[in-house]
Amino acid sequence: MQFPSPVSLQWIAEFIGAKLLGNVNGNATGINEIHKVEKGDLVFVDHPKYYDKCINSAASFIIINKEAAVPEGKALLIVDNPFEAYCKIANHFRPFEPSTKVQSDSATIGEGSFIYPTAFIGNHVIIGKNCIIYPNVSIMDHCIIGDNVIIQSGTVIGSDAFYYNTKKDREMWYKKMPSCGRVIIEDEVEIGAGCTIDRGVSHDTIIGKGTKMDNMIHIGHDTITGKNCLIAAQVGIAGVVTLEDGVTLWGQVGVNKTLTIGANAVIFAQSGVGKDTAGGKVYFGSPIEDAKEKMKELVWIKRIPELWEKVMGKSSAT
Amino acid sequence: MQFPSPVSLQWIAEFIGAKLLGNVNGNATGINEIHKVEKGDLVFVDHPKYYDKCINSAASFIIINKEAAVPEGKALLIVDNPFEAYCKIANHFRPFEPSTKVQSDSATIGEGSFIYPTAFIGNHVIIGKNCIIYPNVSIMDHCIIGDNVIIQSGTVIGSDAFYYNTKKDREMWYKKMPSCGRVIIEDEVEIGAGCTIDRGVSHDTIIGKGTKMDNMIHIGHDTITGKNCLIAAQVGIAGVVTLEDGVTLWGQVGVNKTLTIGANAVIFAQSGVGKDTAGGKVYFGSPIEDAKEKMKELVWIKRIPELWEKVMGKSSAT
Amino acid sequence: MQFPSPVSLQWIAEFIGAKLLGNVNGNATGINEIHKVEKGDLVFVDHPKYYDKCINSAASFIIINKEAAVPEGKALLIVDNPFEAYCKIANHFRPFEPSTKVQSDSATIGEGSFIYPTAFIGNHVIIGKNCIIYPNVSIMDHCIIGDNVIIQSGTVIGSDAFYYNTKKDREMWYKKMPSCGRVIIEDEVEIGAGCTIDRGVSHDTIIGKGTKMDNMIHIGHDTITGKNCLIAAQVGIAGVVTLEDGVTLWGQVGVNKTLTIGANAVIFAQSGVGKDTAGGKVYFGSPIEDAKEKMKELVWIKRIPELWEKVMGKSSAT
Repeated sequence: MQFPSPVSLQWIAEFIGAKLLGNVNGNATGINEIHKVEKGDLVFVDHPKYYDKCINSAASFIIINKEAAVPEGKALLIVDNPFEAYCKIANHFRPFEPSTKVQSDSATIGEGSFIYPTAFIGNHVIIGKNCIIYPNVSIMDHCIIGDNVIIQSGTVIGSDAFYYNTKKDREMWYKKMPSCGRVIIEDEVEIGAGCTIDRGVSHDTIIGKGTKMDNMIHIGHDTITGKNCLIAAQVGIAGVVTLEDGVTLWGQVGVNKTLTIGANAVIFAQSGVGKDTAGGKVYFGSPIEDAKEKMKELVWIKRIPELWEKVMGKSSAT
Repeated sequence: MQFPSPVSLQWIAEFIGAKLLGNVNGNATGINEIHKVEKGDLVFVDHPKYYDKCINSAASFIIINKEAAVPEGKALLIVDNPFEAYCKIANHFRPFEPSTKVQSDSATIGEGSFIYPTAFIGNHVIIGKNCIIYPNVSIMDHCIIGDNVIIQSGTVIGSDAFYYNTKKDREMWYKKMPSCGRVIIEDEVEIGAGCTIDRGVSHDTIIGKGTKMDNMIHIGHDTITGKNCLIAAQVGIAGVVTLEDGVTLWGQVGVNKTLTIGANAVIFAQSGVGKDTAGGKVYFGSPIEDAKEKMKELVWIKRIPELWEKVMGKSSAT
Repeated sequence: MQFPSPVSLQWIAEFIGAKLLGNVNGNATGINEIHKVEKGDLVFVDHPKYYDKCINSAASFIIINKEAAVPEGKALLIVDNPFEAYCKIANHFRPFEPSTKVQSDSATIGEGSFIYPTAFIGNHVIIGKNCIIYPNVSIMDHCIIGDNVIIQSGTVIGSDAFYYNTKKDREMWYKKMPSCGRVIIEDEVEIGAGCTIDRGVSHDTIIGKGTKMDNMIHIGHDTITGKNCLIAAQVGIAGVVTLEDGVTLWGQVGVNKTLTIGANAVIFAQSGVGKDTAGGKVYFGSPIEDAKEKMKELVWIKRIPELWEKVMGKSSAT
């Protein structure tokens, strides 16, 4: 999330009760979680395993629970509980803003766009020109919809990320991390019925221009699809995934978090994508393999009984 | 889609700017895409690979981008862009008709049927007797619901087909083909929560009498189920599929497009159906096989290490 | 379902036209289907295969279609069609109660809870304190939501069970069994967008304290999750399942009915759970196996060609 204007580190340090080290006169331009940090950002880290990664990331200002050496131009904000501090800042700049109307007065609807009754349009939503938003769609606060976008019934744009601070030594293991990012739907995108697209935890979830999505597709937080992707029904994509341009995912494919699928890759139905995947090829299986290799493998499996009989003798094969 | 009354070919030729060859005095009774054509229909074809198939299909009148021999009684309508011509005709006879009320004045609701608040009922919808339509259901224009039908919350009836004209040499690869078909839900059908049933591209999607569907099931365009089918949660069925009577699909099964599953077939959970499947049998796997054979295969796979040790020697097996 | 107060067996016998045998002066405290019976309950049985199981279950009073020996303190209610008798009783005590408002007057909403417009709240629903119920959510009659619960857009709480009386020798094979149970969501639970949680057939579906659910998760009737479970997107859980505390299910997992997954078990994405599963371990596959064993198996399959070449000779391996 970008702040409305740069915020002085000294104000932030006071707000969260932090000891400030390093570039104490800096100004933060936004706050992001580690997967999406940019220069000028605040980030937080509370586990020693990730101290170095965060301190040396693109982020300029690090909320941390231990003193450490500060790289040139950066600052550390030292607190006991960096996660709570992060939440306090995120909630301050993106507070819960109740809606009492089905279509918020602060939403902007472009010329030629039609919103069906029972579609909910949240606060600060921007919808472009010549869109159709079908019944029982929910477009939550701050989301941005381009021109010529069609969203079929029952779809949810901007649900919260499934993203928790986990500690198993307390009564409630999972604490919600506030989602202060947005969903951005680019021009010419069409989204089927019953889809759910989560907002970014701190950055944006983006559906690229001309991408077409079938029904009941789940898109996790901070995921970005390229242009002209084609996503069939019941596909699930976890958080922080990148689909490059022209990727095709057939029905019921699952994609694990924080990975990239290369341009023009095709993933056959019911496959599971567990790691970075090169573009321009066809894949199948759970976990995926080159589709032709996977098909051959299925034939090889059928040859085991013949092999067994040859090696072990006829009577043993039952 | 059937036209309200037969339409003269000469009017159509003028409307889409086509050169007319063959039976120039004919009248078209409807327009359909190639999977569902009937006598009297207009159809379109723009790829040389499918010229013969379309010209020799049941359709009487072919919108095409090249001159060709015309079979007796048929006519060709020659235009530069048959897809655009098809869309122009479909949109003329089935124009976008905005709804400003949650329940359209042109909808008909049968005696004893109850519609919950926040359920959306579109234009020209017909609902039979003694139905229950739960909250946040969306029933889109022209769909037909029989008697004693129950539709649980959040389900969408009549979302558009996921069906695009694809050309990868232009900026936007996928162009939407208008869905002018309907969804027909026959008597005694029960549909769970959060399902999506797409309308036919040009014909009808039909759920057969007495069929019961669990939650979050996706049914593609122009798919037809028989009587007394049982479909468990999270099943996805692509377009133009036929389920014959009494088919059972267990949870999370995926069914590929344009295939038939025979009467009383049973498909175990998480299976993938990729081709025509004979009735009266039990199947499992992705892709499916006879369930017993598939179970045996799983046992055979476990025997590979023993085989390896016998052939390659103990030390090699790690 | 518990009755509002104990009901005399003699009244019930007269109401359903039953012959009463055994403890004829008893009072029933509730009615349940066989998976969930307690002392004082009515239950029904119509298939000889289950006569003994029902008569000797925890239930005190058995609606049955044949005379049999009655255990001490119990009673039999003999009718021609026990299923119809069960439905008559269930519908009498839990009749269909239409809602004409988006938020029922009989619902109770706790302090600090916010209900978005277009969320539907049914009759006798109880919502605790500091909850957020997002747009287009449906919470159906009699469901109970604890404190600090968040339910994202489009989710359905309390859809009917997918539970039918099946007889294939009549025109309509499947007859709906009325769902008179509830859904209970405990404190600190968070539920994503587009989920569906079915009510119990006769008992309660329960989501345990602090459990977090991602989007598009299906939970079947009478299923119970423990505390601090983590359920990722597009998971489907059938009816009468028990997840013990701290279970993690990754995306698109399927869980078959009437089974238990032990505490702290982790099931990897796209797996299928078909039987009782011990806690504290990690599983993968469809059907699931120990995850490490399954990973090894995938490596063994890749060695078949080498084995084939060694045994059958090079030229045969194509």
